[in-house]
Amino acid sequence: MEYASKLLENAVYEVSQLPGIGKRTALRLVLHLLKQPEQQTTLLAEAILKLRTEINFCSSCYNISDTELCEICANPKRDASLVCVVEDIRDVMAIENTSQYQGLYHVLGGKISPMEGIGPQDLNIVPLITKIKEGNIKELIFALSSTMEGDTTNFYIYKQLEGIDVTTSTIARGIAVGDELEYADEVTLGRSILNRVPFENSMKAN
Amino acid sequence: MEYASKLLENAVYEVSQLPGIGKRTALRLVLHLLKQPEQQTTLLAEAILKLRTEINFCSSCYNISDTELCEICANPKRDASLVCVVEDIRDVMAIENTSQYQGLYHVLGGKISPMEGIGPQDLNIVPLITKIKEGNIKELIFALSSTMEGDTTNFYIYKQLEGIDVTTSTIARGIAVGDELEYADEVTLGRSILNRVPFENSMKAN
Ligand SMILES: [Zn+2]
Ligand SMILES: [Zn+2]
Repeated sequence: MEYASKLLENAVYEVSQLPGIGKRTALRLVLHLLKQPEQQTTLLAEAILKLRTEINFCSSCYNISDTELCEICANPKRDASLVCVVEDIRDVMAIENTSQYQGLYHVLGGKISPMEGIGPQDLNIVPLITKIKEGNIKELIFALSSTMEGDTTNFYIYKQLEGIDVTTSTIARGIAVGDELEYADEVTLGRSILNRVPFENSMKAN
Repeated sequence: MEYASKLLENAVYEVSQLPGIGKRTALRLVLHLLKQPEQQTTLLAEAILKLRTEINFCSSCYNISDTELCEICANPKRDASLVCVVEDIRDVMAIENTSQYQGLYHVLGGKISPMEGIGPQDLNIVPLITKIKEGNIKELIFALSSTMEGDTTNFYIYKQLEGIDVTTSTIARGIAVGDELEYADEVTLGRSILNRVPFENSMKAN
């Protein structure tokens, strides 16, 4: 495509760097912004800049948070002996949405994926193990999506727990194998947390 | 959806104001930005801010342009006696892509749409008529999409030309009625310009 303007070409290029947004969609979005009041573009640009520069992660669970401890970790009514291990913040939001879970979370920030060059050291695994070693956590619930990467990550963490007194479980596989957690309906997802099974059992089933 | 962070909620809200982007997609895009180097977000924000504040429109054809006159209008090899009327810059890009057209353009900036509250005064129609009255334009090619709004706009402009010596034509309807111009394949679109028909004929066909 040839652009009549370098400014336009540049804006389209940057927008098309977002995942799932092709050049054509990027052009449509950018032309839309041009038709809106200038303030609209300013608000958008400032919101994403501010997010990127000021964002904080909870020092305990690595959930996105505007405070040192996130609202969930800071809530004394939550059961701190129960920790649900998830891939990212969208999974936290999806589980919170079910109102079925009263424990805490631990956000790994991804899954182990040799294909994408993501190793254990790129994820928040060490602080999880450290937290468990402190001895206040009774049960760890694995809630990664049931893909090969998810299973690998679960197993890697499971092996790190050898000799540590903690129960491990995985959410019940009411969710179809290979499906992303965040797209599950609330009822299925809520039930799969209540009916979680010991992690050892889930390995036998594979 | 409940967000763990006001910063996050705000960024998701602003991104979801873009057309065709729901809350879920907005969250996915924003979380993607959080995983990229900070510079990526800065480049994106700056590109859209710069576009919005520094953008210029060609003083003759209203195409987006970084210069007073756009490259097409400023090109002496183009046939200035031929003007193709289009809805927006995406149509200019689509037609330019065919390499079949050597005339100039006039970008209206939309179509007359009473439903959306867009009247003739909201479009670049007056400068078009003024330009035609100067007497250097021999032929006006209507290339709006063949929707009711497109037809209304064509007809409104056509009526303004009464008593003015200019030929009017529309691009050949090789393009399916109701289809957006920008999604047409290059061959069909190129041919539809070469085989344009007098505007009066197109009215009889309706
Ligand atoms: Zn937390
Ligand atoms: Zn121009």
